[in-house]
Amino acid sequence: MHIRVITPITTHGYSPLDGFREYVDAATVLSQVELDHGPASIECEFDEMLAAPATVARAIAAEREGVDAVVIDCMGDPGLQAAREAVQIPVLGPCEACMHVAAMMGQAFSVLTVLDTTSPGFVKRARVYGVADRLASVRSVNIPVLSLKGDHSPVLAALTEQAVQVVRDDGAHVIIFGCTGMKGLAGALGAELAAQGYGGVPVIDPMPTTLRMAEAFAKVGIQHSRRTYHTPPRKRIDGYSFLGL
Amino acid sequence: MHIRVITPITTHGYSPLDGFREYVDAATVLSQVELDHGPASIECEFDEMLAAPATVARAIAAEREGVDAVVIDCMGDPGLQAAREAVQIPVLGPCEACMHVAAMMGQAFSVLTVLDTTSPGFVKRARVYGVADRLASVRSVNIPVLSLKGDHSPVLAALTEQAVQVVRDDGAHVIIFGCTGMKGLAGALGAELAAQGYGGVPVIDPMPTTLRMAEAFAKVGIQHSRRTYHTPPRKRIDGYSFLGL
Amino acid sequence: MHIRVITPITTHGYSPLDGFREYVDAATVLSQVELDHGPASIECEFDEMLAAPATVARAIAAEREGVDAVVIDCMGDPGLQAAREAVQIPVLGPCEACMHVAAMMGQAFSVLTVLDTTSPGFVKRARVYGVADRLASVRSVNIPVLSLKGDHSPVLAALTEQAVQVVRDDGAHVIIFGCTGMKGLAGALGAELAAQGYGGVPVIDPMPTTLRMAEAFAKVGIQHSRRTYHTPPRKRIDGYSFLGL
Amino acid sequence: MHIRVITPITTHGYSPLDGFREYVDAATVLSQVELDHGPASIECEFDEMLAAPATVARAIAAEREGVDAVVIDCMGDPGLQAAREAVQIPVLGPCEACMHVAAMMGQAFSVLTVLDTTSPGFVKRARVYGVADRLASVRSVNIPVLSLKGDHSPVLAALTEQAVQVVRDDGAHVIIFGCTGMKGLAGALGAELAAQGYGGVPVIDPMPTTLRMAEAFAKVGIQHSRRTYHTPPRKRIDGYSFLGL
Amino acid sequence: MHIRVITPITTHGYSPLDGFREYVDAATVLSQVELDHGPASIECEFDEMLAAPATVARAIAAEREGVDAVVIDCMGDPGLQAAREAVQIPVLGPCEACMHVAAMMGQAFSVLTVLDTTSPGFVKRARVYGVADRLASVRSVNIPVLSLKGDHSPVLAALTEQAVQVVRDDGAHVIIFGCTGMKGLAGALGAELAAQGYGGVPVIDPMPTTLRMAEAFAKVGIQHSRRTYHTPPRKRIDGYSFLGL
Amino acid sequence: MHIRVITPITTHGYSPLDGFREYVDAATVLSQVELDHGPASIECEFDEMLAAPATVARAIAAEREGVDAVVIDCMGDPGLQAAREAVQIPVLGPCEACMHVAAMMGQAFSVLTVLDTTSPGFVKRARVYGVADRLASVRSVNIPVLSLKGDHSPVLAALTEQAVQVVRDDGAHVIIFGCTGMKGLAGALGAELAAQGYGGVPVIDPMPTTLRMAEAFAKVGIQHSRRTYHTPPRKRIDGYSFLGL
Repeated sequence: MHIRVITPITTHGYSPLDGFREYVDAATVLSQVELDHGPASIECEFDEMLAAPATVARAIAAEREGVDAVVIDCMGDPGLQAAREAVQIPVLGPCEACMHVAAMMGQAFSVLTVLDTTSPGFVKRARVYGVADRLASVRSVNIPVLSLKGDHSPVLAALTEQAVQVVRDDGAHVIIFGCTGMKGLAGALGAELAAQGYGGVPVIDPMPTTLRMAEAFAKVGIQHSRRTYHTPPRKRIDGYSFLGL
Repeated sequence: MHIRVITPITTHGYSPLDGFREYVDAATVLSQVELDHGPASIECEFDEMLAAPATVARAIAAEREGVDAVVIDCMGDPGLQAAREAVQIPVLGPCEACMHVAAMMGQAFSVLTVLDTTSPGFVKRARVYGVADRLASVRSVNIPVLSLKGDHSPVLAALTEQAVQVVRDDGAHVIIFGCTGMKGLAGALGAELAAQGYGGVPVIDPMPTTLRMAEAFAKVGIQHSRRTYHTPPRKRIDGYSFLGL
Repeated sequence: MHIRVITPITTHGYSPLDGFREYVDAATVLSQVELDHGPASIECEFDEMLAAPATVARAIAAEREGVDAVVIDCMGDPGLQAAREAVQIPVLGPCEACMHVAAMMGQAFSVLTVLDTTSPGFVKRARVYGVADRLASVRSVNIPVLSLKGDHSPVLAALTEQAVQVVRDDGAHVIIFGCTGMKGLAGALGAELAAQGYGGVPVIDPMPTTLRMAEAFAKVGIQHSRRTYHTPPRKRIDGYSFLGL
Repeated sequence: MHIRVITPITTHGYSPLDGFREYVDAATVLSQVELDHGPASIECEFDEMLAAPATVARAIAAEREGVDAVVIDCMGDPGLQAAREAVQIPVLGPCEACMHVAAMMGQAFSVLTVLDTTSPGFVKRARVYGVADRLASVRSVNIPVLSLKGDHSPVLAALTEQAVQVVRDDGAHVIIFGCTGMKGLAGALGAELAAQGYGGVPVIDPMPTTLRMAEAFAKVGIQHSRRTYHTPPRKRIDGYSFLGL
Repeated sequence: MHIRVITPITTHGYSPLDGFREYVDAATVLSQVELDHGPASIECEFDEMLAAPATVARAIAAEREGVDAVVIDCMGDPGLQAAREAVQIPVLGPCEACMHVAAMMGQAFSVLTVLDTTSPGFVKRARVYGVADRLASVRSVNIPVLSLKGDHSPVLAALTEQAVQVVRDDGAHVIIFGCTGMKGLAGALGAELAAQGYGGVPVIDPMPTTLRMAEAFAKVGIQHSRRTYHTPPRKRIDGYSFLGL
Repeated sequence: MHIRVITPITTHGYSPLDGFREYVDAATVLSQVELDHGPASIECEFDEMLAAPATVARAIAAEREGVDAVVIDCMGDPGLQAAREAVQIPVLGPCEACMHVAAMMGQAFSVLTVLDTTSPGFVKRARVYGVADRLASVRSVNIPVLSLKGDHSPVLAALTEQAVQVVRDDGAHVIIFGCTGMKGLAGALGAELAAQGYGGVPVIDPMPTTLRMAEAFAKVGIQHSRRTYHTPPRKRIDGYSFLGL
């Protein structure tokens, strides 16, 4: 079993491979690639658009190398649909995976994201994924992606403040982190919520959840439908030779 | 890691534990219980209702024994919500899990079930689970649950006939087996479909998929929301002493 | 015309038959049964599950006795679908009936229920019944079912407090009582609302409304569809002999 | 108890009062008015529009006369919302009432109507009433409203032909007549369906059902919400003096 | 190109033709008619009903005169569907047109209307037009239609107060004026919102938008479907001879 | 008034500017750009992804040059959301515009597209745009984009064959061309449909419709919401220097 994490940004070293190891089986080979063509971080549709081509190229390369499943390391799920058209191995986007898991785990869920610029994308993706009725709200902590790393205290404080609001005011029964860069804070946030009287609210940490889903899909042989994701018709592509398409 | 399969019928030996082993990790402890109180098989809401109390009792017992996750071995998901109220460990119903997986894998899915008596329940559950917009159709092979076992040929032939229709006429891009007793036929059905010109349609085999999801949930620590699934208020219960509640 | 009220709890005498007589025609025969097997009250999915088998057994007995229609005396509608499979006479659940009446009477409705433990069930049932778009909110008065009886003052005060919020903040145009045990308080609550400047909001009292609907259905010969509610396939049932199934 | 039927067409004597008596209690006073201003029959939105003002005027008059509830005798529900604004007594439209009853009685319903010109109105009303998800289809028998009366044989034959299609091909579990002029044919249609192997499908006859609902609403004191149906602001109305507004 | 504005009220001179000229091409012939039969203003369903017949008669006359497109000058869209049945030239209602434009321009929209009596109609129309999921809220400024004209200051102040709430509290990303009589205030409201920190929210002024859409539809030859809007069957109409139908 | 058409493919000369002139005012300046980086044609999500970055770069350039509105010349709407984030002038995608126009013009619409590979994208976009309930079906003529040009006879024949099916079998009341390359065939298709007994079905030709909408939006000053489409946060972009971002 070999799972490839594609971290779809050009800020190298943002999410080191070591940080993912505890979320896969000991026997699972885990590898990671980042991008050379794309944005430093992903905080809007424009960034996702620029991240998508190289992400899909990385997915194609992964399949050629015999990788068993691909996980895109960004809650924007950049290139998810196009990658599924391009390859047959499972490609998982954490936003899609976590929204469906959240829909299973409770009546309604909210997303805690980094910046307001990312919020409309979550609403759009909930509509695409078919779970918009379960999306209670999207709130942001107003911290850019690249500032999430380092001291966790202000991030946790901001997450807690917003989390209380989505539970108390918006009707959230489940919380999803809106950025894979928030990895590792789910337990602490759950504890903070419980301390403030809002216990029992699952906090879904995107990459751990999606990596485990990817392992599960690969083990059981679940693939995406070729009637939804057709192989792209062959044709001339100009200007993307650097991607090796 | 210990996963408990609850086969919620009183026909003992219908789905032996051995048949599930290949769908969990070698290191995962897998155990199984069946029911002493309930129906011989589950083919309608009435049967589900009678299966639910003992199923939930089995889930409570599993939690007390230190089991990590429970999987209900029936696409009717009998007792799913009540079990989640009663315990904190993950309880997975294959209908809920597979409908969400199917919604991730393609634009729309159909269910191939045993009898027409079970069809309305699938529509109802799709509504409860929030994926009714993705449910293309439910078609039945007109074979009772207890007749699925034995010679696979007539079951596969009937599944193929219905599968062609859901893909060709109903717009299904993904197929879900409507009975856990159809286990093991997904590969053969996919091949039959491909042979008839309908390749690329994933066929989701409920128990393998749900067991892998249960492992994933248990490993990552995903739990259901206590704001959706509250602990039942303590009160007098009459006439269910045989369940040990 | 003979209507049978099934009060699906084992707390005998909670809702005496006399209290229902004014809500049916003088010529209508009204009878009542309670349960010997089930919960003392119904405040969550777990309780509903335990109430359902005996409730359905009571519905079957009612049909055998020549009763014209059955009304389940609980807003959880325990056993509703299974009972409809089992019998041909109309079986009404007050939650289903009142949610549809509320949808007819105004743009959106809220449910005022007893405990938070019951709230998710209302959301689920609204989804099953097809009126989730009209459900503005569910709020609870934080009073257990068995504490509703006796002095009405604190119950009315709590209902009024929540009612103001659903109208003022949640957009409710119609209110439904979330427990049949609140019977008789609709007029007083409407008056309290009007006194606080929120007049013109219908308050639907579940059992009076559902009894009248049951009479209407029986008189006009409305039955549930046998294509949705199929007769349960005959099979061995274990451990429910006490129900006389 | 006094119920007023408003037959909102200018073809006097189309649906005589005597034909409705069996659908109300012996003690219920039943009266009827027709229109002097409006269309000879109602077969499109244009006709409904022309029927509405006089229908609402009749509802206002009914309330002034002390009538307890009003039933509009047309599946187009002409003037329903405006009438509810204008009066406080219950006003029932058979399309709204029967669509909600059908939604209670089965998984999905179809409407069998007179002409294709009326079909889009049913889709629109299903959307307004919140039950569009339950509307399987609308099919017409291609017989004008004023030709329904007289020999029932061709009407029943045409209804049967369409009914088979909605059940077999469209997924209808319940059937609603799309014109109140089809009154009395529900039993015969149900028998024809059963004879052709499609038994167990309730056929809802609009006026009997709605009259019984009106009695039920009036007895229990159910009124429409004044937050949805506000009293019209007083103002100058020109050119409708003949209506006595 | 000739566009006819039908101002569907009997308060003559309320919205003079001159006020619309800047919103059409210099080469477009613009004409206007008002009503002789109907309400002084439109503030509820009752008013819309009374405005509809004469509005449709005006649309029929417009088509006979060779007009290329009709715009109904009221956010209640009175007579829209019936007019489309009656004529083949495009008939635009500003509520329908602006709700679809708003759905294109942002994630969710709110309507700022005159009186609470008009609010439920907007919810209903959003359901009919298929955009209810995008309707964040309807709030009213509590100023009658006929009081909008004259000094703009109090109207603008009231609009600003409500606009801040729909953006800050209700999640509106786009605002639509709920009355065509608010014409001309969109720019000022946008500036006020920006001054209070809520910039970037488009404010849709109904008549300018709808007139431009009407020109566009007429130029490109877009017509409504005759399968949705069938020609009304010919029949006797009583009491509307004054309309010249 | 200056409108820029971005033809987002690298097959230069596919849709010459001259072919669009008749669809804008004589006074409107119309200009066109094609892509140097991207696919030869757009027939799946993968192609759209590759077309998007250069399309957005073209939109940014257009705004800098003082263009008043941008129209993307592809029914995949590649880059639509990202372009709106990047610029303040109106950016119209023909799929979004035509789906909303179709929703206004009739009860339900179908899309006639080129290849099955494009079909899932239309379903996805209908979900994103909020009109999925109005999408009756998507059917393809099985002709690649680059084969549409030249002899129109086979294209028209194939369109007619599919059009009859969407109207007769799928319930379409309006038809939208699924490729802007079908430009000019709407009138002929409408005539063919009428000749086969399916008259009165509007056929929406994407680019004429969208160009007229763009003119309308620019004239009235309609802009997209900055709360949905935020300005992208400034950051390092690698590997797209050729786009001049």
